[in-house]
Amino acid sequence: MEAHNGLSARIVEAEGFEGIWASGLSISTALGVRDANEASWTQVLDVAEFMVDATSIPVMLDGDTGFGNFNNARRLIRKLCQRQIAAVCIEDKVFPKTNSFIGAAQELADPQEFSGKIKACKDSQTDSNFAVVARVEALIAGRSMQEALDRAATYHDAGADAILIHSKKPDAGEILTFANMWGNTAPLVIVPTTYYNTPTEEFEKAGISMVIWANHNIRAATSIMLTTCRHIRQHRHLRDIEKKITSVGEIFDLLGYAELEAAKARYLPGEEMTKDDRVF
Amino acid sequence: MEAHNGLSARIVEAEGFEGIWASGLSISTALGVRDANEASWTQVLDVAEFMVDATSIPVMLDGDTGFGNFNNARRLIRKLCQRQIAAVCIEDKVFPKTNSFIGAAQELADPQEFSGKIKACKDSQTDSNFAVVARVEALIAGRSMQEALDRAATYHDAGADAILIHSKKPDAGEILTFANMWGNTAPLVIVPTTYYNTPTEEFEKAGISMVIWANHNIRAATSIMLTTCRHIRQHRHLRDIEKKITSVGEIFDLLGYAELEAAKARYLPGEEMTKDDRVF
Amino acid sequence: MEAHNGLSARIVEAEGFEGIWASGLSISTALGVRDANEASWTQVLDVAEFMVDATSIPVMLDGDTGFGNFNNARRLIRKLCQRQIAAVCIEDKVFPKTNSFIGAAQELADPQEFSGKIKACKDSQTDSNFAVVARVEALIAGRSMQEALDRAATYHDAGADAILIHSKKPDAGEILTFANMWGNTAPLVIVPTTYYNTPTEEFEKAGISMVIWANHNIRAATSIMLTTCRHIRQHRHLRDIEKKITSVGEIFDLLGYAELEAAKARYLPGEEMTKDDRVF
Amino acid sequence: MEAHNGLSARIVEAEGFEGIWASGLSISTALGVRDANEASWTQVLDVAEFMVDATSIPVMLDGDTGFGNFNNARRLIRKLCQRQIAAVCIEDKVFPKTNSFIGAAQELADPQEFSGKIKACKDSQTDSNFAVVARVEALIAGRSMQEALDRAATYHDAGADAILIHSKKPDAGEILTFANMWGNTAPLVIVPTTYYNTPTEEFEKAGISMVIWANHNIRAATSIMLTTCRHIRQHRHLRDIEKKITSVGEIFDLLGYAELEAAKARYLPGEEMTKDDRVF
Repeated sequence: MEAHNGLSARIVEAEGFEGIWASGLSISTALGVRDANEASWTQVLDVAEFMVDATSIPVMLDGDTGFGNFNNARRLIRKLCQRQIAAVCIEDKVFPKTNSFIGAAQELADPQEFSGKIKACKDSQTDSNFAVVARVEALIAGRSMQEALDRAATYHDAGADAILIHSKKPDAGEILTFANMWGNTAPLVIVPTTYYNTPTEEFEKAGISMVIWANHNIRAATSIMLTTCRHIRQHRHLRDIEKKITSVGEIFDLLGYAELEAAKARYLPGEEMTKDDRVF
Repeated sequence: MEAHNGLSARIVEAEGFEGIWASGLSISTALGVRDANEASWTQVLDVAEFMVDATSIPVMLDGDTGFGNFNNARRLIRKLCQRQIAAVCIEDKVFPKTNSFIGAAQELADPQEFSGKIKACKDSQTDSNFAVVARVEALIAGRSMQEALDRAATYHDAGADAILIHSKKPDAGEILTFANMWGNTAPLVIVPTTYYNTPTEEFEKAGISMVIWANHNIRAATSIMLTTCRHIRQHRHLRDIEKKITSVGEIFDLLGYAELEAAKARYLPGEEMTKDDRVF
Repeated sequence: MEAHNGLSARIVEAEGFEGIWASGLSISTALGVRDANEASWTQVLDVAEFMVDATSIPVMLDGDTGFGNFNNARRLIRKLCQRQIAAVCIEDKVFPKTNSFIGAAQELADPQEFSGKIKACKDSQTDSNFAVVARVEALIAGRSMQEALDRAATYHDAGADAILIHSKKPDAGEILTFANMWGNTAPLVIVPTTYYNTPTEEFEKAGISMVIWANHNIRAATSIMLTTCRHIRQHRHLRDIEKKITSVGEIFDLLGYAELEAAKARYLPGEEMTKDDRVF
Repeated sequence: MEAHNGLSARIVEAEGFEGIWASGLSISTALGVRDANEASWTQVLDVAEFMVDATSIPVMLDGDTGFGNFNNARRLIRKLCQRQIAAVCIEDKVFPKTNSFIGAAQELADPQEFSGKIKACKDSQTDSNFAVVARVEALIAGRSMQEALDRAATYHDAGADAILIHSKKPDAGEILTFANMWGNTAPLVIVPTTYYNTPTEEFEKAGISMVIWANHNIRAATSIMLTTCRHIRQHRHLRDIEKKITSVGEIFDLLGYAELEAAKARYLPGEEMTKDDRVF
């Protein structure tokens, strides 16, 4: 499930998901910039670090193109391992990237160049469990199914731990075809943003290993912030809002404020538990 | 109206508010840390910078205690002016701060020490329109109305452009008393988080200059992310979610993706407008 | 004169230079990484910000290729203006860059693509005095004198305020030829790192506007740190070192510690001047 | 041996030292700010991270007061462990700190409060080998030898792995007295900046475990940058400088550029080794 900052990551964990997708679209949107490498790779890394710090489930970072060539990518991988990020997904496009839902025929990376990048990533990981997922953009770019399969095979040979096959079709047809032709060569990951009508059971039957709900937290947050702002701006009071939104006290609980009060009692001389004094 | 990142700041502006409150509670919550100076002051500054970059209305930063003594505070002010932040609010507590809604009798700063800090801030601003708002925490800390008034007067004498008088009472009584006794000495700012039932008109009648809706975007976002995650986790599909949340295309519009496509046509040789190719 | 951090920038100003060259090679070397865009553009920006904060003379940033395409470059320019950096130099190579002294035939940017980048930079500056210097790498890459002149003219037409013509020859021949053929079309900037034997007067006669001493602070610092470490490691005492190096007191003076003590006396109640108490 | 950035750290390792002292004075000086917590704790962390990335020997960070209370300190410790920093030294003063060589009677932390901070640090380390060194400033602040010993014992009881006893006397008398009275209770660390005349053998005989040469790289670098700038400014040429300073090629060697060229040959299709093409 997508997250874009420490808070949303904690919510994803609290609601029982097994892993966090640190989405490039969502992170850039939250920052207020566009999904076109407008934020630097270290600014993205900082966001991912806050996510890891706030949670205990695996975080997979949307690593775009690796933010440059093989050398930029392998530097990224060392930093991700250092920050205890569990996996990265890199895509076979060129830096700076354009969001996959914009443009008819985006430029793709040379498969050999991208394979060298994957190999550099795998050679550089300092955590043996770290996973590199290769994202195949061939279908997005209007290339053939065969090219998509060939690229996936090439990337897997180069060391990719899994393949993310991306599609912007309104139905799951080409994804299921790909999965069928790909077989069990390596784990498959999908992102059903446009083909959201297909039941997850169908993906499971097709042998797909992971489904990413890629941007629904940021989109939900956007929608409610728009309506909340509109309401407050229009009515100039909070009465109707107060009961519908998370209370300050629940925010305190979600972020672990009680731990801090307990720690004060433990580490500060003369300090006692003050939780009872909370207004919320 | 509160914002906590570039996206929420842009939403606040889009919905017509006149200014943005870069809330310390909200920023720390979004980052996934506690409102206790767990994020460094430069991490907070980075967030505020993204807000300014994403908007064109004034941003006032919740500057806590100024993140240390007068020297830390004046260094902050120079950075805020450099980042085109319009104002800062600093409070008369001690670093590291505790959220005002926790603890019965928080320690307050010595009024003379805090006045020196305000003076240092005003002497250091490089933008002549920059405003320093002094936040009086006396009522929060259980001190007398007279002490609150005395502190406000002292801070105003030291150069504060406005006074934020804070209260955690469920009604506006002490706030209105303060406003009545304060008169027109300097502009008053209030934060009706606990006393949300009072109509804004009453505050206007009392001569209050600014009302801050201090944390309602982050709380609204939290509530909907919790329910969205719960739904997707339980149902494992997006069908019921898709229509209720902001679409990817609306995200693109809110963040100005069309400007980027237009700029490509202007600055990249052989590039043409691709907006029509957007999936969303 | 080159600088690579706040300290070296302050030294450059203290010794009377008119401007600071925030060198990419030097900044990356100081950070401990290679001059191949291993540091992110925001990490470079952070370094440049410390330089500006520490000085009052103009800083020109070595902006490499603009750290991506026109959009990355114009985002950089807005940030440089915000940080009061006076100028940027961008070069007609491809991201990620390789240092100009490595490799026989480095890939160059398409002149039209690079011109669009310059135009985007000029259109984006928020400080009307900000200057964009176009660095021509044609001679470095083994291209002809005519191509160098053509590229320079194209970049100037696109809006470049000045041309930096770079050479890695051991003598100034091709630089002087270029200057002679270029005439007064636009100001010329040179970097005599390899052709250091030519007197500056010759460059002045040739009409060159600016000479950059590009990396001599970092190289001098490296040499003395190597010998200082070697001496201390071998002799295990500081006696012979102490008198040869800047004293702690001179460091305090260079960094303005007296201002802080004076400010304490002004802003802290009960504080008095303590300069006399300095050990150094 | 002191270092203040990635480059100086690499030099310290190259010259055979067993560990690196990431000095607060040196780091702030290199950044161009004062040793008074003007740089935020995350800015200091960023510098330390570059040091660790550039080296393979242990780095001990000068952690000042822990940058706030126990909670700020334990957050720091988690980040230091994450960045593979080997140890931290925290001192019993109050935030924001003043450099130990300034001021006659600096305020000291309450010993119980500081002990709680040490305990919080030890409880928070995620690397079992991480060491917390407690720095006793009692002698610096003009307190008695007995208070220094009492504080050291209290901090050791609270979990400190070693004691740094600091002095600003021109001779080693009080340090040797302290060491004699302290005995073998816990390892002792010293910083002979002012008492540099004492041979290291005497410290060894006194049972001192570690000597820190605390600021001699930054002071040496400052001195040579001052003279280099003065020379270039005056003579306007590099002829006399060139042969005296580290060459660009030696910089390339020190930073491992050959590894990058080798990696290009390995990971980039059609790329061959280009080391022979280096100008330097």
